[in-house]
Amino acid sequence: MKALKVLNDRVSVEKVSKPAGDGEALVRVLRSGICNTDLEIARGYAGFNGTIGHEFVGLVEYAADEQLIGKRVVGEINAGCGKCDLCLKGDSRHCPDRTVLGIHGRDGTHAEFLRLPEVNLLEVPESISDAAAVFVEPLAAAYGISEQAPIGDGDNVAVIGDGKLGILCSRSLSRSTVHMTQIGKHKEKLDLVEKYGNVTGVMLDDAGSLRNSFDIVIEASGSESGFATALDLLRPRGKLVLKSTFHGLPRWQASRVVVDEITIIGSRCGRFAPALKLLSSKAIEVEDLISDEFPLVSGVKAMRRAAESDAMKVLLSN
Amino acid sequence: MKALKVLNDRVSVEKVSKPAGDGEALVRVLRSGICNTDLEIARGYAGFNGTIGHEFVGLVEYAADEQLIGKRVVGEINAGCGKCDLCLKGDSRHCPDRTVLGIHGRDGTHAEFLRLPEVNLLEVPESISDAAAVFVEPLAAAYGISEQAPIGDGDNVAVIGDGKLGILCSRSLSRSTVHMTQIGKHKEKLDLVEKYGNVTGVMLDDAGSLRNSFDIVIEASGSESGFATALDLLRPRGKLVLKSTFHGLPRWQASRVVVDEITIIGSRCGRFAPALKLLSSKAIEVEDLISDEFPLVSGVKAMRRAAESDAMKVLLSN
Repeated sequence: MKALKVLNDRVSVEKVSKPAGDGEALVRVLRSGICNTDLEIARGYAGFNGTIGHEFVGLVEYAADEQLIGKRVVGEINAGCGKCDLCLKGDSRHCPDRTVLGIHGRDGTHAEFLRLPEVNLLEVPESISDAAAVFVEPLAAAYGISEQAPIGDGDNVAVIGDGKLGILCSRSLSRSTVHMTQIGKHKEKLDLVEKYGNVTGVMLDDAGSLRNSFDIVIEASGSESGFATALDLLRPRGKLVLKSTFHGLPRWQASRVVVDEITIIGSRCGRFAPALKLLSSKAIEVEDLISDEFPLVSGVKAMRRAAESDAMKVLLSN
Repeated sequence: MKALKVLNDRVSVEKVSKPAGDGEALVRVLRSGICNTDLEIARGYAGFNGTIGHEFVGLVEYAADEQLIGKRVVGEINAGCGKCDLCLKGDSRHCPDRTVLGIHGRDGTHAEFLRLPEVNLLEVPESISDAAAVFVEPLAAAYGISEQAPIGDGDNVAVIGDGKLGILCSRSLSRSTVHMTQIGKHKEKLDLVEKYGNVTGVMLDDAGSLRNSFDIVIEASGSESGFATALDLLRPRGKLVLKSTFHGLPRWQASRVVVDEITIIGSRCGRFAPALKLLSSKAIEVEDLISDEFPLVSGVKAMRRAAESDAMKVLLSN
């Protein structure tokens, strides 16, 4: 089968063996989505070599549980050891021995087939299209913020970054508050932000007047300057949710965090079930965030396209 | 009167005018304490020029409220505008227009006299010695952590740093948990740590085996490497309390904070009343943390001494 692989910071589409089940489910990938983390991995983040990608929708080709066979599924990306305290409590997201789909110790989604433990798979309701289902993973990550930093009606909340992750944050979380502000660098992306409800887009250059005014700021731009902007926007004792994975060792104004008694909350993966519910109930729209779709064989070109500043979600299809 | 001043990063004892009341209380300083923040200010942190120092005990020489005159007092260091929402709620620690004793817009304690709003002053019970009373401010800062990151019985807690602030953290907070670990570089300081109760001292070089094991780590060493060590020691979803003020822009492993979903809590000032109670009830001991005492005229020498690695609290007296 074909797979989009990273080997020593080089991306290529390669012919590889179809994965053996090894006690896990085998899934035929229908569509997969390119995440900024894929781009970071291609630049050396996480030191991963193998098939990249962790957003997908697919059909179960083989599973020990015959009920699963033929089902259209998405899958939680952390595969735990199944034995530690965390796994036994049903949350393998921080299992110390976990593998992570297309990120750590496990081949990913940009391939014709993938394998995952059956317990990771969730059936996709018919009302969700293939294209929308690819968004379950990033939407779960965005909406997962509400698990760690609950947002109240009266909270003044800003999202920094107008990329796909930033917009998924505002679309899913703005439902909990009266009003939200999204700060970005791209007028046309901020227009997408304002399409639904109670989110106002503000160009970064115009954000100076908003200093010290937010209770919660979500950093979803992945840039060092985004972090500094987030600190500027927060009121004392505010909360900064750090959503993007940064490569390297950025500098930070630690003294500001102490003097203003800021709380910084690192946030990675969310649960899939609430994200599936948001999509199946049509509470939020995602398909307008797709900018391009490529066949898997054009994976290298798709990665290049995903890195361009005007790109939004880029899909690969089989 | 004499005062220990910083002017353009140079420290000197100068003759200055005795402060006028200007509607505030005038306090004759008995003793003051040198904090690491004073050393940072002398290196240019906070861009402050003026009399430094924010830890003191003194006698009220003048106040509009005659009941206060002659009383032995300590004083909260943040002086708010008295008009904003925060001040009206009785907490001026984050008033945007505050001045801060010896740190921002207000001359400090290393002088014969100082002035502060009467509302900032708290009478010191007789059972607390002058020397111990100087510790009320740093002890309040240490114990204030419990306001922001409540520590439970079963929490595994570590403090990084075996300086005076680190030891005040463990002495005050270890009362809330079964056991606490203090990590430092100085055998003789770690001995001070173990003098009381349930705190075990561990040399930094031996801390490798403790990786990923703490629920809460308090960074009180003020060093960039202390922050990295704190991240290493935390379990996923753990809390890092950032207690020291850092000068400059240190580097940090932001991706680790996201992947392990760490929460970082900046922590600055605490309330004085609980600290006074800890001292008056003899719940904790502080006088053994004094390494030196100098007369105010030897303030420059005292600052040099306070910067030496074996120094603990250095006091100035009038």
